[in-house]
Amino acid sequence: MNLEGLRVMGIDPGLTRCGLSVVQAGRGRAVLPVAVGVVRTPSGDDLALRLLRLSRAVGEWMDEYRPDVVAVERVFERGNVSTVMHTAHAVGVLILAAAERGVPVHMYTPSEVKKAVSGNGRADKKQMTAMITRILGLSEPPKPADAADALALAVCHCWRAPMLFRQRAGLIDGRVSAAKRRTPSPDNHDRSFPS
Amino acid sequence: MNLEGLRVMGIDPGLTRCGLSVVQAGRGRAVLPVAVGVVRTPSGDDLALRLLRLSRAVGEWMDEYRPDVVAVERVFERGNVSTVMHTAHAVGVLILAAAERGVPVHMYTPSEVKKAVSGNGRADKKQMTAMITRILGLSEPPKPADAADALALAVCHCWRAPMLFRQRAGLIDGRVSAAKRRTPSPDNHDRSFPS
Repeated sequence: MNLEGLRVMGIDPGLTRCGLSVVQAGRGRAVLPVAVGVVRTPSGDDLALRLLRLSRAVGEWMDEYRPDVVAVERVFERGNVSTVMHTAHAVGVLILAAAERGVPVHMYTPSEVKKAVSGNGRADKKQMTAMITRILGLSEPPKPADAADALALAVCHCWRAPMLFRQRAGLIDGRVSAAKRRTPSPDNHDRSFPS
Repeated sequence: MNLEGLRVMGIDPGLTRCGLSVVQAGRGRAVLPVAVGVVRTPSGDDLALRLLRLSRAVGEWMDEYRPDVVAVERVFERGNVSTVMHTAHAVGVLILAAAERGVPVHMYTPSEVKKAVSGNGRADKKQMTAMITRILGLSEPPKPADAADALALAVCHCWRAPMLFRQRAGLIDGRVSAAKRRTPSPDNHDRSFPS
C-alpha cells in the first residue's frame, strides 16, 4: 500500500493550549513537515466562547491545509477533574470539525504514539522531541510541548496507517487473519527509525 | 425582575440518548412546557458521525425553538470511563451549538437540579418525574427518563435565574453582598412548589 502524499493533521487536544500539526507522508517511511502551531484560549473566558474559538481556529486550519485524515490524542480520566472535562469537551468540538468536513478521525493513546515514534511506549518528553526533530529533519526542536506532541501524533498515524489497512484486509479472510495473529509480529519495522 | 416569556432549553447530555426540552417562564413561578424529545445515535456508529448527528439535531431544535438560554447538566468523572468521555465529547458539541447561535449556556449539577425542582438534592427519579409532571401541568409523566431530566434542567434554570441575577447585582456593592451573605437565606421560596 502506498501512502505517499497522504496529508495527516495531528491534534494534541486542550482548551488552554491545543497543539496542531500537518505532515505529509513521503516515500517509504519519510514524513515531511507542513505546518505546526498552538491554539490558545484564555482560561478566564467563558467555556462556550473558548470552545467556539477553538472550533473556528481548527476549522480554519482544516480548510487551509485540507488533511486527508486527522489523528487526535485519546483523553483519559486522570489528573485534575476540571481540566480533563474541559479537554474532553474540546475533543468533541475537534472531532466535530473533522466530521463536518468529511475528514476521518483516528484516536491514539499517548503510549501508542510514543511506541510508534520512538519504539518505547514510556519515552519521556525529551526523547520524543529529539525523535520528532530527527524524523522530520527540523533545524531545531519544535516548541512548545503541545506542538511537538501534535507532530508526534501525525507521524504516528503515517506509520501506523499501513498496519491498520493490513489488519482490516486480514479480516476479510478469517483463516489468514488467524494465521497472521499466531505468527510472531513482522511489524517491528513499523516502530524502528528509518535508516 | 420579570422573567415572563423567557424561553429555556434544557439538555440532558448523552451520545446514545440526549434529552432535549424547551419551556417558557410564565407569571411568577409558572413554567409552561413547549417541547420535549430525545436524540439518539446508534452506539455501533463511528464517534465522529455520532457527534455530527447530535450537533445537527440540537442545532435544528435551537433554530426552531429559538431559546434565550440553554441549561446543560454538568458531567462528572464517574461511572463507565468510555461513557463519561463520550458524554463529555457530546457536551462540547452541545455547548458549541449554543455558542454558534449566541445563546448563553448555564451548567447545573444533578443535585442542583433536584434541589431546585423538588427541594431535595437527593430526590429519586420517581419523585423528580412526579414534580415535573405537576409543575408543567402535564397529563402524563414525560418519558423516557432523559426527556424528564431535560425538562427538570429547564425548570431549574427558570427558578434559579432570578437568584443568579440577584447574586450578580449584590456583587456590585461588596458591603451589601457581604451583609446578604450573613443574613439567613431568604431564598427558600425558590425551592418551594408554587401554590
